[in-house]
Amino acid sequence: MNWTFINDGFVKEEDAKLHFRDLSILRGYGIFDFFKLKGPTPLFLDEHLDRFYASAHQMHLPVSFSRQELKDLVQLMIQKNDAVDCGIRLSLTGGYSPDGFQVAKPNFIISQHDFQQPGKEQFEKGIKLMTYEHIRQLPEVKSIDYLLPIWLQPKVKEQEADDILYHHKGIISECPRANFFIVTDKEQLITPSKNCLSGITRKKIMEHARKHFEVIEKDIQLSDLMKAKEAFITSTTKQLLPVRQIDHFLLPGAHPVAQKLLRLSNAE
Amino acid sequence: MNWTFINDGFVKEEDAKLHFRDLSILRGYGIFDFFKLKGPTPLFLDEHLDRFYASAHQMHLPVSFSRQELKDLVQLMIQKNDAVDCGIRLSLTGGYSPDGFQVAKPNFIISQHDFQQPGKEQFEKGIKLMTYEHIRQLPEVKSIDYLLPIWLQPKVKEQEADDILYHHKGIISECPRANFFIVTDKEQLITPSKNCLSGITRKKIMEHARKHFEVIEKDIQLSDLMKAKEAFITSTTKQLLPVRQIDHFLLPGAHPVAQKLLRLSNAE
Repeated sequence: MNWTFINDGFVKEEDAKLHFRDLSILRGYGIFDFFKLKGPTPLFLDEHLDRFYASAHQMHLPVSFSRQELKDLVQLMIQKNDAVDCGIRLSLTGGYSPDGFQVAKPNFIISQHDFQQPGKEQFEKGIKLMTYEHIRQLPEVKSIDYLLPIWLQPKVKEQEADDILYHHKGIISECPRANFFIVTDKEQLITPSKNCLSGITRKKIMEHARKHFEVIEKDIQLSDLMKAKEAFITSTTKQLLPVRQIDHFLLPGAHPVAQKLLRLSNAE
Repeated sequence: MNWTFINDGFVKEEDAKLHFRDLSILRGYGIFDFFKLKGPTPLFLDEHLDRFYASAHQMHLPVSFSRQELKDLVQLMIQKNDAVDCGIRLSLTGGYSPDGFQVAKPNFIISQHDFQQPGKEQFEKGIKLMTYEHIRQLPEVKSIDYLLPIWLQPKVKEQEADDILYHHKGIISECPRANFFIVTDKEQLITPSKNCLSGITRKKIMEHARKHFEVIEKDIQLSDLMKAKEAFITSTTKQLLPVRQIDHFLLPGAHPVAQKLLRLSNAE
């Protein structure tokens, strides 16, 4: 049995509920962050807390805990749950709004989540992305707005794609839950600089990459894909996954740079 | 004490909760509809049910009740709650998704809500709108996506506006929770035809208006506002409210057409 933290205390996970008048349920208004445990140890917790506070601030949602209090709560939950090698999610919602619209005192949840890290086979095979013209609302905020990618799932399945690649007028931004990189024939790494979330894994991969490659944050056009030697996505849960196909366009099957970056990342 | 219906039965309103793993809380994924009671009688229930089923279908959310079953449940709740002159909301969420992303069996809620109908004073004074460049995601769907207008509330208050008017490249679409009309100097009524929700009140007002005025559904440019004699918004809760100001631009203070339409609408 797992424990979940809600607002001011731990409850059994099955009792971790919000009243329907919460603004996440009524109006889809809330933010979150999600980090992994390696064994029982949170990975990059400070970076995730930085982003959690930044998202909350941007969305006018006060956090009633200090950074140290949050760290202590996370630690306490890991101990109570004997949590290892799983994900922890911090959620902050718009709260119980008297008029069903104005932000109220947020509801705050710390919850434990399983997730499947991609295996070696998926890494070697690479994934297929389906392009879609869209920019997330407030792309710098880790909001709970996933209306579009969930709505698109039947189309993703129909095209036998694994994920979606957003672009706007041909300029690539991100996947709904991952950042995007290409490797040029000069072995430069390029990743979009705007209209995308500042991924923690993106940042870590860039730090490793800078020791071996030129890394550039700038616009990537859909047409730049034609000349790319490799493409890959990064996220907390997926870490780093090569892209093999985008719509009908096939990328080269080898991905030595992605392999090297994954090795460096795993050695951290 | 009020009763709320969740999934398969009535519960006390304070017990009407969803587990945090529902896709509305995790991913802002859900739809709803909202209708008024005049006395104990639902207004335009068939039209609201039409739209509820259409929104659910568009968002790949199965409704496990037939139209007659929904009508019976609504009627039963009105009786149990002695509900009069209030609002009833039907909510349908993405459900408890095993992977936190794919749509699961939806959670369904029927809940009772108070709301303030605008008074005579507010009608006479008119409201101020703040323009904002945006098109709602899936504008034809009554989804729970209100991230942007709630995020904009501090700016709305700063500008002493009452609501937001969305446009895209100068073409007006709608307010976040209301439709928009202008009255031209030839006493034509014009309302946007695309990128907006098919409002039930919008439809009813257009039906009344057609008996006395020419009514046209077409693009309205922001620049068309300069020549407008009147502008107003329509919604279930606000019914019909004249617009007095848009950003810095003042519209004429008299609104005889809006007054006439409200009178016809109230006489229904």
